[in-house]
Amino acid sequence: MKKFTEKDRYFMERALTIAYKVKGSTFPNPAVGAVIVKQGTIVGAGATKLYGGDHAEKVALKKAGKNARNAVLYVTLEPCCHFGRTAPCTQAVVEAGIKKVVVAVTDPNPLVNGRGIRFLRNKKVQVSVGLMQEEASLLNEDFFWSVTHQMPWVALKLATTLDGKIADSSGNAKWITNKQSRTFVHELRRRHAAVAVGKGTLLRDNPRLTVRHVKGCSPARIVFASSPEIPENCHFRKDASKYQSILVCKGGQRRRIEKRPDGVEVWYTGYKKNREHLSAFLRMAFDAGLTSIFIEGGRKLASSFLEHKLINRLYIFYSNTILGQGIESFSFAKHLTIDNTIRIGEIKTHSFGNNFLITGIPYRDK
Amino acid sequence: MKKFTEKDRYFMERALTIAYKVKGSTFPNPAVGAVIVKQGTIVGAGATKLYGGDHAEKVALKKAGKNARNAVLYVTLEPCCHFGRTAPCTQAVVEAGIKKVVVAVTDPNPLVNGRGIRFLRNKKVQVSVGLMQEEASLLNEDFFWSVTHQMPWVALKLATTLDGKIADSSGNAKWITNKQSRTFVHELRRRHAAVAVGKGTLLRDNPRLTVRHVKGCSPARIVFASSPEIPENCHFRKDASKYQSILVCKGGQRRRIEKRPDGVEVWYTGYKKNREHLSAFLRMAFDAGLTSIFIEGGRKLASSFLEHKLINRLYIFYSNTILGQGIESFSFAKHLTIDNTIRIGEIKTHSFGNNFLITGIPYRDK
Repeated sequence: MKKFTEKDRYFMERALTIAYKVKGSTFPNPAVGAVIVKQGTIVGAGATKLYGGDHAEKVALKKAGKNARNAVLYVTLEPCCHFGRTAPCTQAVVEAGIKKVVVAVTDPNPLVNGRGIRFLRNKKVQVSVGLMQEEASLLNEDFFWSVTHQMPWVALKLATTLDGKIADSSGNAKWITNKQSRTFVHELRRRHAAVAVGKGTLLRDNPRLTVRHVKGCSPARIVFASSPEIPENCHFRKDASKYQSILVCKGGQRRRIEKRPDGVEVWYTGYKKNREHLSAFLRMAFDAGLTSIFIEGGRKLASSFLEHKLINRLYIFYSNTILGQGIESFSFAKHLTIDNTIRIGEIKTHSFGNNFLITGIPYRDK
Repeated sequence: MKKFTEKDRYFMERALTIAYKVKGSTFPNPAVGAVIVKQGTIVGAGATKLYGGDHAEKVALKKAGKNARNAVLYVTLEPCCHFGRTAPCTQAVVEAGIKKVVVAVTDPNPLVNGRGIRFLRNKKVQVSVGLMQEEASLLNEDFFWSVTHQMPWVALKLATTLDGKIADSSGNAKWITNKQSRTFVHELRRRHAAVAVGKGTLLRDNPRLTVRHVKGCSPARIVFASSPEIPENCHFRKDASKYQSILVCKGGQRRRIEKRPDGVEVWYTGYKKNREHLSAFLRMAFDAGLTSIFIEGGRKLASSFLEHKLINRLYIFYSNTILGQGIESFSFAKHLTIDNTIRIGEIKTHSFGNNFLITGIPYRDK
């Protein structure tokens, strides 16, 4: 027996598309899309507003108005049933007279976690769960992780040649990958709460670390440095009033945040050793509401995060070129062997013209 | 207006499948498949026999017998019109009373090159050309190259980690890629006239260089060495009576082939410099009927062929692993820069479980 029809799928796909548009602007809330359908027609649709604003269900219900009565609600995530900054969505759904709710995936947030669905069923609303579950889980994988682990989701991006070089022998990396790939990197930036680089990358490339080429808010910007001195003229410092800008430094007597007059926040983790330092940073980031972090290099920073098993998702963009000699992708403190590599699970590939992207989950083996 | 129907495509696909089965056993002839269809039913099918035997069309015609009259012939390559080791196929097609011939691709062999099609049309046989042309061109890309350039087609294979390492720091490469990938390497061996490795690989891995895990003939085996001494107990030497086994050595007064009592042929190219040496080797190989060569490494041999622009197709198998430090994919005499890389065109990807294959044409930029 098929639980869902082609039409169900069509409407849930719409809800997912709407949700992806707001991905990156709802932190620390998940990005959710909702579509209300009556007699085969969409009578209301919406996505999560900025933090503190309406959830997707309420946006859609307001648009639908009286048409919501006896209609079907497609929603990419289980509706919430708790009072947060807004009143629970489940209550609004019941009050609007929605007949049936199709949910893509349950909300693992301990405050919800099936309670929303039970509430609706108790109120005689029909609920079906699991339509396009995989797609909806991917959409909010960062939220699901951070809400259950109380740590930010960490993604790592590399751009390499087919033979694994991230720059030529002289250190030049502009540009290894093509324009389509680089545009998608901006899309990925947009979807994360923060982007991070090492100080070496800051000094060499002077990156803006903002979202351009695609629509969307710029995330917080993070630079890892051994000391808090950075050049006055770098974009990171000059634009510190416009975007949250964090300089993460090792050591200090204890965990401490110093707000500088130039707008840059200096975060001292209180730890000197890499593993403790990075873990402490992640706790500070979570406490500051940064629930996902997109690391863009350089090699030292990327290698540190990866060898300490702190990466949740890996994105490698491959060019269609070969360099031979050049700068390696990674350099780990401990040499790995064939029988003891870092394995990447759930690998998927995407094409960007003659470039392609490999993405997967480190340390999972399937 | 659509020139070909879905049914046409179906029968040509059948012909291509049949052709792929004999790929590797017809050198220096191309692998061809033919299907004869009467009233929607296949009444005869065949592929090129071993060199000197019947071509695909004749095999299919013999099977069809009288049913060939007024039937349609689907053939992956333009039928030949010249007397070689066998009488021309075009004549047999006319004599059998074939009404229409659907050809995937014309034969660029200067002896054919459209003449086969013209002959048939002159004899009032209807001919359509171009159905699944791309697939049929790919099937015999090696033949098309070698017959027009009078040089072997050279393919290069690598198996690397996601970060471009072909072995770990201790030189161990067993196994970087998964079983599915390694099985497909045997399929690729089968499709080539010869497989080649460097002496370093011979000494370290003692490879058999034969086709196992898939059905098909083993190709000729080639080892590149600076001197003709190789260990007595290696598979290459022990099996030299079973498979053509060639040791390619630099230098010598002039081009010369020495047949040793152990069955190994030693080929002296007469050149010491890499570029001249490899080019001379390719001429010798072509003269010996080896129209395609599959190079499996090691790094030195692969890098030499690639930097001298002697590679026609590249196959890179990627594992789902990361090594960090290890043996690089390539090491070129001259360091390349971002603006002057080796570019790979016509890139395609294939999955093998959690591994994947990238294949493309070096030095083409699209």
